[in-house]
Amino acid sequence: MTTTQIILASRPKGLPTLENFKMEDVALPSIRDGEVLLEGMYYSVDPYMRGRMNDAKSYAPPFETGKPLSGGVVAKVIESKSTNFKSGDIITGNLPWQKKMIASEKDIRKIDTTIAPASYYLGILGMTGLTAYFGLMHIGKPKAGETVVVSGAAGAVGMVVGQIAAIQNCYVVGIAGTDEKIKLLKDEFGFDDAINYKTTPDMKKAIAAACPKGVDIYFDNVGGSISDAVISNINFHARIPLCGQISLYNSTEIPMGPRLQPMLLTRSVLMQGFIVSNFQSEFPEGHKQLATWVKECRLKFTETIEHGFEKLPQALLGLFKGDNTGKMIVEV
Amino acid sequence: MTTTQIILASRPKGLPTLENFKMEDVALPSIRDGEVLLEGMYYSVDPYMRGRMNDAKSYAPPFETGKPLSGGVVAKVIESKSTNFKSGDIITGNLPWQKKMIASEKDIRKIDTTIAPASYYLGILGMTGLTAYFGLMHIGKPKAGETVVVSGAAGAVGMVVGQIAAIQNCYVVGIAGTDEKIKLLKDEFGFDDAINYKTTPDMKKAIAAACPKGVDIYFDNVGGSISDAVISNINFHARIPLCGQISLYNSTEIPMGPRLQPMLLTRSVLMQGFIVSNFQSEFPEGHKQLATWVKECRLKFTETIEHGFEKLPQALLGLFKGDNTGKMIVEV
Repeated sequence: MTTTQIILASRPKGLPTLENFKMEDVALPSIRDGEVLLEGMYYSVDPYMRGRMNDAKSYAPPFETGKPLSGGVVAKVIESKSTNFKSGDIITGNLPWQKKMIASEKDIRKIDTTIAPASYYLGILGMTGLTAYFGLMHIGKPKAGETVVVSGAAGAVGMVVGQIAAIQNCYVVGIAGTDEKIKLLKDEFGFDDAINYKTTPDMKKAIAAACPKGVDIYFDNVGGSISDAVISNINFHARIPLCGQISLYNSTEIPMGPRLQPMLLTRSVLMQGFIVSNFQSEFPEGHKQLATWVKECRLKFTETIEHGFEKLPQALLGLFKGDNTGKMIVEV
Repeated sequence: MTTTQIILASRPKGLPTLENFKMEDVALPSIRDGEVLLEGMYYSVDPYMRGRMNDAKSYAPPFETGKPLSGGVVAKVIESKSTNFKSGDIITGNLPWQKKMIASEKDIRKIDTTIAPASYYLGILGMTGLTAYFGLMHIGKPKAGETVVVSGAAGAVGMVVGQIAAIQNCYVVGIAGTDEKIKLLKDEFGFDDAINYKTTPDMKKAIAAACPKGVDIYFDNVGGSISDAVISNINFHARIPLCGQISLYNSTEIPMGPRLQPMLLTRSVLMQGFIVSNFQSEFPEGHKQLATWVKECRLKFTETIEHGFEKLPQALLGLFKGDNTGKMIVEV
């Protein structure tokens, strides 16, 4: 049997282009005991994948050139030699960018589509939701009445962070890049205020105005000058979970900026870089809490869905232009 | 009765000069119930005092122009209207830069000069030692076998941090600015290695060579390009207690440097600014542990002592030129 896959054809310098990807056919062997044959339904694209396209030491190993990329996928079991799975089961796991793929029963888990649509397991009920949950709750440690600022607020992680912060009775301010996103954050996702960084000339002043009591938690998804503006309004004993730096992922030189340490020092601020897998042992707690809030309709979610397996590279590149509102997904 | 005091005559721009200080006579009233009259013996000068010379929001309120500076002082009680103190007692407290001064019994504490010389209560048995202890133990959380790098290692805090790290069975590398200091750190203070940043052309490479297993804890006293070089060698899950930024205290513009967040993010690094008073409720634990290690001769200490009350401004300015090895003290 053959299937189609998308490989990393070459490593990008700066912003990736479609030329860095290549679609090709590949033969699949027969499945063995403990394995299943899967057909992909939903594929996740995420900002962190940009880092894996470089040949550089990071938390996840680099993608190999000539090999398929991989990421979060929701798939249907179409053949099983595992006693844990049968044909028709819907599963999720970290899987290659192939239309069909073979997986070991150890690397996938069944999902409950009565709680939420299957694609949500790539988002609010998957790594996205867990990232928001652990970054905010375990690093940010919000207290009622505190002010929480979220950058990349209309992105998949950002919109969950803002809603969880609101559940904790915090005052929540989002930063995003279009007026439609600003409206959505305030009208649909319960943000107390939101700032369009693309149309705001003085972000430092705008954040000061939006946060009259200063910033107690800054959940940073973007880095760069937006973060400089937030940090210049940071409070004593503030916490800064570092979740993403999407504004810098395509830099070809080391980005320069104002030195942070004097501010972090004089205000006793904590800054903590993290990835969700640091909290692996606590995933059950996170899954349970997120599912509860989703069932109770206290957490909403939204997706930007592209259609067609071949759209995967384009969807990934779209993240760096802010094409997505909420979670960017490719549906096959 | 009159005494002599040193006031902040004007706020410095950049590096302070002797012109920013002025010595003058001042009248002292009689002491009231619960107060003591003190004669200063040892005066502490510390890098953080530079920040208090600015009119800027920080953890300590700014010194006022026309008023005496203040800081850690060891003094002798020469008259007492407190039942807790009698003439001849040796005390320490945060006191004004005056030859004689009046203090409330609530603001001073008696010291035990059988454990260590009186001046040590401004250093290893005072704020200096507590700063080293809490920054390393409560933020750095050293584990046996880890690599700890300390900048400003021959300064008062740095040399204590290095020794405590060695007690925790860490591999300890210091950074300092003269060959004499390097020799002292290795021969007297038990550092495994030490680097003279003034004679080392490529600090990033030198730190990589001195720390073959990378850097697990970076105790930062200095900031600037030295810190950039250390952080470029930082390990996954490293901790960076931010204690000082002496290289930047005299900056007149916002210092620029490579953005830190991408490195902190991809390696899940914690950076935490702090001052010792954040740990006030745990001071008894710190005092006890430091006194025990000093009595057991597991912690050594050294001082640079200037003589004469009028030398206080000069001693403070000397900190920014690295004139001191260990704690800088003025003895009257």
